[in-house]
Amino acid sequence: QIDSARLWDSIHETAKFGATPKGGVRRLTLSQEDRQVRDWFRKACEDAGLEVHVDTLGSMFGLRKGRDMSKPPVGLGSHLDTQPTGGKFDGILGTLGALEVIRTLNDAGIETDAPLCIVNWTNEEGSRFAPAMMASAAYVGDFTVEDILSRKDADGVTVGEALDGIGYRGESKVGTQKFSGFVELHIEQGPILEAENKTIGVVDHGQGVFWYDGKVTGFESHAGSTPMPLRRDALLALSEFALTLEQIALKLGPNAVATIGEAVIANPSRNVIPGEIAFTIDCRSANADTLEALDASLRAAASEIAKKRKVEIAIDQVWRKPPTHFDPKLVDAVERAAGALGYAHRRITSGAGHDACNLNTIMPAAMVFVPCKDGISHNELEDATQSDCAAGANVLLHTVLSLAGV
Amino acid sequence: QIDSARLWDSIHETAKFGATPKGGVRRLTLSQEDRQVRDWFRKACEDAGLEVHVDTLGSMFGLRKGRDMSKPPVGLGSHLDTQPTGGKFDGILGTLGALEVIRTLNDAGIETDAPLCIVNWTNEEGSRFAPAMMASAAYVGDFTVEDILSRKDADGVTVGEALDGIGYRGESKVGTQKFSGFVELHIEQGPILEAENKTIGVVDHGQGVFWYDGKVTGFESHAGSTPMPLRRDALLALSEFALTLEQIALKLGPNAVATIGEAVIANPSRNVIPGEIAFTIDCRSANADTLEALDASLRAAASEIAKKRKVEIAIDQVWRKPPTHFDPKLVDAVERAAGALGYAHRRITSGAGHDACNLNTIMPAAMVFVPCKDGISHNELEDATQSDCAAGANVLLHTVLSLAGV
Ligand SMILES: NC(=O)NCCC(=O)O
Ligand SMILES: NC(=O)NCCC(=O)O
Repeated sequence: QIDSARLWDSIHETAKFGATPKGGVRRLTLSQEDRQVRDWFRKACEDAGLEVHVDTLGSMFGLRKGRDMSKPPVGLGSHLDTQPTGGKFDGILGTLGALEVIRTLNDAGIETDAPLCIVNWTNEEGSRFAPAMMASAAYVGDFTVEDILSRKDADGVTVGEALDGIGYRGESKVGTQKFSGFVELHIEQGPILEAENKTIGVVDHGQGVFWYDGKVTGFESHAGSTPMPLRRDALLALSEFALTLEQIALKLGPNAVATIGEAVIANPSRNVIPGEIAFTIDCRSANADTLEALDASLRAAASEIAKKRKVEIAIDQVWRKPPTHFDPKLVDAVERAAGALGYAHRRITSGAGHDACNLNTIMPAAMVFVPCKDGISHNELEDATQSDCAAGANVLLHTVLSLAGV
Repeated sequence: QIDSARLWDSIHETAKFGATPKGGVRRLTLSQEDRQVRDWFRKACEDAGLEVHVDTLGSMFGLRKGRDMSKPPVGLGSHLDTQPTGGKFDGILGTLGALEVIRTLNDAGIETDAPLCIVNWTNEEGSRFAPAMMASAAYVGDFTVEDILSRKDADGVTVGEALDGIGYRGESKVGTQKFSGFVELHIEQGPILEAENKTIGVVDHGQGVFWYDGKVTGFESHAGSTPMPLRRDALLALSEFALTLEQIALKLGPNAVATIGEAVIANPSRNVIPGEIAFTIDCRSANADTLEALDASLRAAASEIAKKRKVEIAIDQVWRKPPTHFDPKLVDAVERAAGALGYAHRRITSGAGHDACNLNTIMPAAMVFVPCKDGISHNELEDATQSDCAAGANVLLHTVLSLAGV
């Protein structure tokens, strides 16, 4: 059994790095706040006897020796970056839960057969730099390291510059730290476990994600002297597209979501009809065909609205992450651990993307979910109970032990 | 007759202050570019023998003596600030047209009975600071000078600070420079004169304007794990409101327009459902009842959409400018001047707001319009012909002479 109070204290200790007035956390990846939590995490790993190394994309690895060092370590962890108005648990629980597993084994004097390696992946959130789960995607070879290093944030700062800015461009080559498998603990970020009074979600699937950059180009003109029928208003075109996209997702059933998260009017002015808007689209489904249907429908809608409103709507797909089917044997191992510990549990599909989804493409991976309050996440009000967090860390501990061998 | 080439050259000479790559001008009020054009204008006034003074809101006055200095001067002019992506003519034609009137009288050695005073009003555009026609509104007493000085731009800089920043907080008390009447030359900013092949628009009415600050408050949540029916998406609510507002304006007929020019998502992120959006509304009509109907309908629509989408929509009216009925005698004087000069002309309602609309509330005021290409304004592509600009300046000259007496 892990130390529930120690885990809870660690979560609240790190929540001060980027704390917001409403009780949330703003810790954008590779920001100064991210540097602070990374420094804290490095020290905590070293204090727990781990050998820390950092790869060239800033992902942090803390290695605990095993009896048989010829075996690749079992990986566990998550991320410490947050959304602009994020919470205290998303990613943090999984990273500090992994640290708590190590501390618990140290306290109990338990040596595992295979080594263990806890990880803090860079830029899981995808808010400052696209795509999300960036470093784990490069780790599994979905993108080259050079490509990722050149990605820019809204201010034009590259990933490479941001890494140098906080001193976290490490020495290890991306992908050289091998694992026999990877287990990630996370809050559900949805309402199901809480509604069904389950303590543990055994994650067997993850939704696929398509991301797009969009641009509406209409025509700027005077808000007072341009008659309504002559307008080529970029905001009205985007409005119609946003509502149509909502209808498309609703029609494709409960297994599809679509979101416009960013929309920025170029050179906005109260008395100018918007002439240009850059926006983003996020589409998801656990079903690959549904995702393709979303893609086709949103493109058709964009063409139709562009024609009708005499504007241009450009839609550029910038990320494709297919649905995840987690490794059946590892999923079973999570389920067995939850059952053995006596926690109420159910199988569940992850609505959010996770580093474990990337890792699952080249190794066995699985996830442990715990409930969060009202299913709220990506919000400063994100919350979870101490006992659910502890339960999740216990399932993580026992799953990892079953994989590493005692 | 004014000197067409000299007027045209002046317009193009000032267009370099804030010139944009697409041939437009970005000269936000009280910016460094505004300082440059003000310095140019002050020197041009002094070179033309005018006595220049600046009021405490930065409006610039250039006085030409008349035979009878007991008479208040006839005012003429417009503004030199532009939209973020504005053109070379909006405001500039009227200010430099007024300067050209003075230069022409100087060349011809004509002394008027009453003095003349040419004016560059501060912040006509209303883009950096609200409301539009800010300084002339304070001049006529619609707002106190203290109130206006404390208005803030998007970066929190006040009008007072911006005036000090470019050295244009003048000494003259606002309102002390009196006029017997005011005449403003301007491009139409709409398509009517060009479509009907008229050179001169004799402006008899101006639309009223209501400005609003709006805010939608929904709930931020995860774009992947929040089912569509559970969302309280601020952008979808705004989209529905924007399309409803368009329908409201269309239903109220050709004599109503409504525009959402600004909309800013708080803490935007690709994978976060927008939780808060600040936006603006601009509503206009030449008919006071229609404006009130617009106001009532948009408030009702906001309530309904807020209820349906479980969000809050706050609507705060920040500016009310009633429709303008220009002084009939001065309008007749403009019409007589246009007729005497042999220009094809028609009466017209101004779609845009103008400083002359404010001045008309306390003195006789009138306006002269000339066509602009395709009715385009508040756009870098704004254009007008040299001969139409010259025609407008000639009508301005003859109207002013008829008022000042030779
Ligand atoms: N778990 C999580 O919120 N990840 C962020 C990436 C995404 O799913 O949008
Ligand atoms: N003439 C002009 O474009 N004025 C700006 C104020 C407004 O009408 O919106």
